[in-house]
Amino acid sequence: MGDIDIANDTVSADVVAKFDLPAYLHSQQAIVASHLESALEPRYPERLFESMWYSLSSDGKRLRPILCLAGCSLSGGDPELAIPTACALEMLHVASLIHDDLPAMDDDDYRRGKPANHKVFGEGIALLAGDALLAYALEFILLNTRQVPAERLLRVMHTLINRVGISGLVGGQAVDIECEGREDIDLETVEFIHTRKTGSLIDAAMVTGATLAGADDDTIARLSRYARKVGVAFQIVDDVLDVIGTRQELGKTPNKDEKSRKATYPRLFGVDGSMQRARELVDSAKKEIAPFGQPAVPLLAMAEFVCTRTS
Amino acid sequence: MGDIDIANDTVSADVVAKFDLPAYLHSQQAIVASHLESALEPRYPERLFESMWYSLSSDGKRLRPILCLAGCSLSGGDPELAIPTACALEMLHVASLIHDDLPAMDDDDYRRGKPANHKVFGEGIALLAGDALLAYALEFILLNTRQVPAERLLRVMHTLINRVGISGLVGGQAVDIECEGREDIDLETVEFIHTRKTGSLIDAAMVTGATLAGADDDTIARLSRYARKVGVAFQIVDDVLDVIGTRQELGKTPNKDEKSRKATYPRLFGVDGSMQRARELVDSAKKEIAPFGQPAVPLLAMAEFVCTRTS
Repeated sequence: MGDIDIANDTVSADVVAKFDLPAYLHSQQAIVASHLESALEPRYPERLFESMWYSLSSDGKRLRPILCLAGCSLSGGDPELAIPTACALEMLHVASLIHDDLPAMDDDDYRRGKPANHKVFGEGIALLAGDALLAYALEFILLNTRQVPAERLLRVMHTLINRVGISGLVGGQAVDIECEGREDIDLETVEFIHTRKTGSLIDAAMVTGATLAGADDDTIARLSRYARKVGVAFQIVDDVLDVIGTRQELGKTPNKDEKSRKATYPRLFGVDGSMQRARELVDSAKKEIAPFGQPAVPLLAMAEFVCTRTS
Repeated sequence: MGDIDIANDTVSADVVAKFDLPAYLHSQQAIVASHLESALEPRYPERLFESMWYSLSSDGKRLRPILCLAGCSLSGGDPELAIPTACALEMLHVASLIHDDLPAMDDDDYRRGKPANHKVFGEGIALLAGDALLAYALEFILLNTRQVPAERLLRVMHTLINRVGISGLVGGQAVDIECEGREDIDLETVEFIHTRKTGSLIDAAMVTGATLAGADDDTIARLSRYARKVGVAFQIVDDVLDVIGTRQELGKTPNKDEKSRKATYPRLFGVDGSMQRARELVDSAKKEIAPFGQPAVPLLAMAEFVCTRTS
């Protein structure tokens, strides 16, 4: 893609407000679902495969795949290029959820409205299903990505691997479980956890989508800043919903964070203070991408949705 | 590298017998150790880092890294090219050992002569250290490999990712834990487990070493067959040592497989029958690479060692 003249291109709040986000999300979710449906061939050992598929086929928002496709489109790429990576992002996300739910970690019995993976398949197979999904996500990209130069594909792999490991998901989860039961968790630590546990893959989604399209460094940097801000806002709202939601709405055990004394925004700033922080982050994220104009509308609407969702 | 005229090049048993394998292994282990030493920078979160380092720095044979360097050399490549991948192979191996030792899996309290990772750091951090090492292994290759074309590096990544996942380590471990406590384990299942749990990364070591050197398809295929045969032989001997060894020699709990009724060769064929099978596999593995002549000597000697080791 060529350079985008961001100075001459903005988008009004009105256009974003009129954008039919539910229809957009629904259509994108359908695209992702159809590709995930055929992504995992049944194979031996069947129980491991069933365990992988059990969690991957759960009803999720598919936020990360959708962001990846949107990042590719905004950068002028054919979103078709990004479909394998979009699917891989969901596999990586699901892998981390399976591990996080294990008794040795967050010990959660419900996920996405049904029993957690280890409650159905046992802890051993659940642990392996997480490992297998992590590896398969990366293999899926290598097996299915077409018409992307090898160097660009290596950058995509590097981004994903980095955001999964000690600098990303795993590092965030490690600090999270170390904080459990402690009363003295400061904001810096809370933000460290959120930027890693939630922000990492949201960031990876935008960066890989743009990278696959051949975006320039400035575009990638703007999308990355957008992603990091939206990612933290998303987690703040998640924590708030955990306090005020019900299990039926969330598909997982509510008020669990409070019971385990985990570091959360509501604990430090209350519900109103937390929602205000989420709003500031979303507004700042929108400023990063507003200059892209019309192509940014879905991402602007999604940022807005992060603050207004109820489940 | 060019094609090797394998018809005109053989190596006598005498040359292999005279090869100073202990000195070779010692020098190669020292190279691997020095690179692993600087591979993991201490960083936040410290406890996760310490857990990763605790297992990575344990006294291991470093068999997979050494095979990778040997595969690169035999294929005419500068082994320096393969050092990041060699280190990554050890990280992947250690990651799988940490996960395998968890109570939900093989529930082993000792590994490489010291308490298992989860006995020191707890199950949550141990699980994350495994995940982190898996991701970091792959990132380490991308960060440190020099002078290898992007397409070749993608093939290396693909090989490793494939051998870690459902077709490799994870698939083998899944069948292994499903077999626990069962009395009706047939040879096919035992071999499935061994070729995945042990053979996968040994195969990956040879294939990636040769790939990095730019080896032709026939060389890669021969090294892969060598690796698969040696890998199964290695695991057979491991199981035999488990029956006849002591904890001091093995650095892990002996006779554990028998206690848990796991599928093993000695259970099916006894100690002598198992050792005979290992010998056949090793002889067949040596035939695959003997035609490479002098450059194959270290690999021929290593195959022989698999049958004669006592720990």
